[in-house]
Amino acid sequence: MDVKEDIISAHRRIKPYIHHTPVITSQALNKMAGAELFFKCENFQKMGAFKMRGATHALLQLSAEQQQKGVVTHSSGNFAQALALAAQNIGIKAYIVMPKDAPDVKKKAVQGYGGIITECEPTLTARETTAQQIQKEKGATFVHPYNDYNVILGNASTGKELLEKHSDLDIIIVPIGGGGLISGIALSVLSFGSNCTVVGAEPFAVDDAYRSLESGEIEQNTSIDTIADGLKTSLGDITFNIIKHHVEKIIRVNEEEIIEAMRLIWERMKIIIEPSSAVALAAVLKSKSEFTNKKVGVILSGGNVDVLNLPF
Amino acid sequence: MDVKEDIISAHRRIKPYIHHTPVITSQALNKMAGAELFFKCENFQKMGAFKMRGATHALLQLSAEQQQKGVVTHSSGNFAQALALAAQNIGIKAYIVMPKDAPDVKKKAVQGYGGIITECEPTLTARETTAQQIQKEKGATFVHPYNDYNVILGNASTGKELLEKHSDLDIIIVPIGGGGLISGIALSVLSFGSNCTVVGAEPFAVDDAYRSLESGEIEQNTSIDTIADGLKTSLGDITFNIIKHHVEKIIRVNEEEIIEAMRLIWERMKIIIEPSSAVALAAVLKSKSEFTNKKVGVILSGGNVDVLNLPF
Repeated sequence: MDVKEDIISAHRRIKPYIHHTPVITSQALNKMAGAELFFKCENFQKMGAFKMRGATHALLQLSAEQQQKGVVTHSSGNFAQALALAAQNIGIKAYIVMPKDAPDVKKKAVQGYGGIITECEPTLTARETTAQQIQKEKGATFVHPYNDYNVILGNASTGKELLEKHSDLDIIIVPIGGGGLISGIALSVLSFGSNCTVVGAEPFAVDDAYRSLESGEIEQNTSIDTIADGLKTSLGDITFNIIKHHVEKIIRVNEEEIIEAMRLIWERMKIIIEPSSAVALAAVLKSKSEFTNKKVGVILSGGNVDVLNLPF
Repeated sequence: MDVKEDIISAHRRIKPYIHHTPVITSQALNKMAGAELFFKCENFQKMGAFKMRGATHALLQLSAEQQQKGVVTHSSGNFAQALALAAQNIGIKAYIVMPKDAPDVKKKAVQGYGGIITECEPTLTARETTAQQIQKEKGATFVHPYNDYNVILGNASTGKELLEKHSDLDIIIVPIGGGGLISGIALSVLSFGSNCTVVGAEPFAVDDAYRSLESGEIEQNTSIDTIADGLKTSLGDITFNIIKHHVEKIIRVNEEEIIEAMRLIWERMKIIIEPSSAVALAAVLKSKSEFTNKKVGVILSGGNVDVLNLPF
């Protein structure tokens, strides 16, 4: 298995379906951080988040027969929308299992992308059982939001694009939820970086990845009380294995620091990011000394935020 | 006088001090408008608005003696900040007259750019008198925010950049306040466009420019009750003269339409614009039939908005 070749192929496959997102800089934020920051803007990605890359790649790797029968996932977040839109683009069916208490705006977004929603009780067991039922009834293939090598390879194209533009980055910092994004970035750094390390950023409130690195086992979150709603999930075995070997460290930040970083990016860079994305800048500003005078890639993972319901 | 040469020279002079801002597109908004929209993002300009271009050019055209004595203006909006920053960049003094009831955040922004503030009563007379006094005492040169040919030439570089990238635009639509931006765009279209018309966009609440075109004389606003706080000013003789000859028409929109357009740009394009900028898209969506299947440049004039105090 040649990871570099795999990423190059994945990127080539998904290119017609994704945006090559811009990398932007801010003198004001560089000054505040004491470092040179290069923001990779996946908030400008199709459907508003990097997940479009992984979802598209997973679907393109299915056999014709599998594609014909459709795919199924359970998610109430960006991955549900990403899978629905990716499936619509390719012309296959996407069955999305969503908890019945999921916000209306999320259900409508999935429907807007042609996803076929099945509602279930708001428990993980109910979600899994419902998805299994659809697999059985429809013959649909289950696609995991992050613990899937093809999803990770799709996500890796984010890091490939960033390193193709700025090959001399010293560090890339990435928010961690289930670990699908940072795993992709870590593989892309192995393949395209030179003396570049990968650092994770995580809210204290859901620091399962930090604790997993400490204990050497996949840890769960006991509460999910964070504004960074994309980062509540725990690692999978595939993502944990990549993170364990290729992520230098994880920096944790509190809720105030996340909100402050989000506001800074909105006000100084004039772009809209979701709270999960702000966690990366919050970590840089919190642990300044580790980034001083470095060239730092900062992954802005998405921009799907309810502008009627802001934390500031 | 060769306008084209003037714009080319102005652009060359200010280039070291301004951003070449991106032009971005949105499939979702194209679909809604039934037209191809090209958004010129002056919200990403230095200090967050196009005014940086005109202010910088006006300062660079002063003699060494004038520069040595500094400049003065009265403004509580983006021009105050633009003049302060432009002066700081060039190394000259900027005296800014601000009404004493101007928001603290605006005063701090001007001070942050090195501007020297003099407060006055919140009337136009007090502002003008105070500015005149500073002219007399300090020998400072007064710079008008928009009714100044050098300011207009600086602003014209916005249209030049847009047309260099998309030479086949059918229409460019621009918000109108004092007319400094649309005058610059109109001159750039004369010089670099081909079969391109310029259309203005204005809130009903401050439709002085619309009424001025109707009556043939510069009209004033009787109220200034609009969320588009950058568009409250009336035309000057220089801007009115350019608009009269080179602007095809002005489309008026109401406050709800402005807020809806602002939210659309925030949500679909994931960028932050101020209400004055949203007026242009609001006009396109209101008068759809005039833009159907056209290539339309939309000038997003700025992104300085108080994220703690949003209209939605």
